[in-house]
Amino acid sequence: MLNVAVIGPGLVGEALIEMILNYSKSSNNSDLPISLIAVTNSSKMLVNPSSKPDNLNDWKAALQSESVPADMDKFVSLILEHGPADKTVLVDCTSNERIASSYPAWLEKGFNVVTPNKKAFSSDISLWNKIKEAANNCSSKPLIMHEATVGAGLPVLSTLNNLVISGDRIDKIEGILSGTLSFLFCEFSNGSASGKSFSDIVKVAKANGFTEPDPRDDLSGLDVARKAIILARLSGASVELSDLALENIVPEELRSASTVTEFMDRLPEFDSHFNSLNQAAFEKGEVLRYVASVDLTTSTYSVSLKSFPKAHAFASLSSGDNILSFTTKYFSNPLTIMGAGAGSEVTAFGIFSDILHVARVKQ
Amino acid sequence: MLNVAVIGPGLVGEALIEMILNYSKSSNNSDLPISLIAVTNSSKMLVNPSSKPDNLNDWKAALQSESVPADMDKFVSLILEHGPADKTVLVDCTSNERIASSYPAWLEKGFNVVTPNKKAFSSDISLWNKIKEAANNCSSKPLIMHEATVGAGLPVLSTLNNLVISGDRIDKIEGILSGTLSFLFCEFSNGSASGKSFSDIVKVAKANGFTEPDPRDDLSGLDVARKAIILARLSGASVELSDLALENIVPEELRSASTVTEFMDRLPEFDSHFNSLNQAAFEKGEVLRYVASVDLTTSTYSVSLKSFPKAHAFASLSSGDNILSFTTKYFSNPLTIMGAGAGSEVTAFGIFSDILHVARVKQ
Repeated sequence: MLNVAVIGPGLVGEALIEMILNYSKSSNNSDLPISLIAVTNSSKMLVNPSSKPDNLNDWKAALQSESVPADMDKFVSLILEHGPADKTVLVDCTSNERIASSYPAWLEKGFNVVTPNKKAFSSDISLWNKIKEAANNCSSKPLIMHEATVGAGLPVLSTLNNLVISGDRIDKIEGILSGTLSFLFCEFSNGSASGKSFSDIVKVAKANGFTEPDPRDDLSGLDVARKAIILARLSGASVELSDLALENIVPEELRSASTVTEFMDRLPEFDSHFNSLNQAAFEKGEVLRYVASVDLTTSTYSVSLKSFPKAHAFASLSSGDNILSFTTKYFSNPLTIMGAGAGSEVTAFGIFSDILHVARVKQ
Repeated sequence: MLNVAVIGPGLVGEALIEMILNYSKSSNNSDLPISLIAVTNSSKMLVNPSSKPDNLNDWKAALQSESVPADMDKFVSLILEHGPADKTVLVDCTSNERIASSYPAWLEKGFNVVTPNKKAFSSDISLWNKIKEAANNCSSKPLIMHEATVGAGLPVLSTLNNLVISGDRIDKIEGILSGTLSFLFCEFSNGSASGKSFSDIVKVAKANGFTEPDPRDDLSGLDVARKAIILARLSGASVELSDLALENIVPEELRSASTVTEFMDRLPEFDSHFNSLNQAAFEKGEVLRYVASVDLTTSTYSVSLKSFPKAHAFASLSSGDNILSFTTKYFSNPLTIMGAGAGSEVTAFGIFSDILHVARVKQ
């Protein structure tokens, strides 16, 4: 039996919990039992007593009516009372840097950790090293997995890890790693001469919830840069965010705009800028895409707006999808993976794939 | 320590053995030790005594100078003397149906099995069921894995398995699953009005070793059909090869040609047939591709020549590559994987990925 504790039941965490509960209910899965034992959000926490295994089927109501205030140290102690750390996985579904900084302590205790939170793997490399050290030093060899940090449920990191371990040489990884920026540029730069203005597309995307509340958090490219750093580090490069050339496509004049409304109101002033980039690409028979590039042969790492010929897989990508290409010694024609790279269900699937792996190894 | 015995050191087996030996030599991998302990071909066999762990570094010469004649029962007994079955994986690198029929007996003994051999998984479903039963009944829960049977080293079956286990609903799987047929049709039907004749392309492919010695073994589609059956069965469908609509593109008049030379000599008589198919596709702005389709919503399974618009991922595929698309509840825009799906190194990588998984679970 693998016990699972979920930290941060937001949209992704909720989809994950449903996946776990459905999995546990199915008789097909009795060979590889997985059990949800605890949930905590930032205000309350709920650790199921072992005596009532089905108590969490109605976890939302239970958490609501729970009176124990959230306390991460206490949460971890209660979980330890429930079962041994090496048969338990802590799933961090937040994007919180403080929680990420707890991973070394959790791993030292023997807990396995699975997370879609990019912070631990793309911030200062000292945290990355501490995490690896903590996992290595613990005698039960706890697992730390984060498939959903890049490409959500697409099998990206598992594939990259297998390539590296099997002795392949990773030459280059390129990809469109943001669902939002994929949508914006697939809509804006679709190979026709005229179309909607960039600001209009951002407006529609924001209205439909395809962007962060402040679209500058997408357009800055920082989230894509973090993913590129994770890919580079898993390929063996010791890189920091500051080693990466990041093209922030928020117009410089709007970076300091104090409100989102001001930013959105003024964005149309820069439509001609984006139009001329699009026009230049169009004249070459190309389209614009916002792309991460991790070149291990030259140790160059970038996240930037580039143009691609229409026959290129990045050009014909479905709007909103992610795509990743690995060029390696084995795959000189790149191994390419594409599909939805954002959304709560596919992200939950990426997390659940990791949980399944932990269950197989630790049961 | 996971012990590995390789059966059938042909091109793929040899590439795999090199991968294993390189892996074992690297100090990075001491956490997850894997050791080659035995090799057999159809005439000789070599089981390394535990006392000489490095003996197989020069396995080719050792096998050559070995005097023990091959005997599968004896091979298995010698391996059992070397170490426990549950810490051992038998890797069948043949495409032999008789060896495939031994998997249930191996699994009953507790051996793990990894193979690129499609026979056991695409022949009579009774063998498939026997294999699952044998693995389930053995108390050590041996693993049987065959990632390389579809798409060689592409992460196809691992992804499909995770989708199924996590509760996703597989609606449709479509793909170009033969490197040879990918090459033939990418070259023949590339969206231009005129080009080389089909028979010329087959001739060149044959001369370069891209086809089987008898190209009819590719053009019959049987190999693709076997892969489609594997995908269907892993998606939960109980199907036999006979349930699949298979379009054999060898012209009927040439199926009984008694020699390969006669077949190749007469193939140009049918160029006009292939040309007119290509022309019809061209007039719709499409290209021809030989595609497997597994539709779980209608329980329809086919392998056939179809045409696709130029913007479709199947149309812009790199010549010779494989591509697979999974349309599911989670991935309504399909999850798509593409890249080399044939070749000894990528096939060996697919096998090695499975071996790594066995090592992680069984160590």
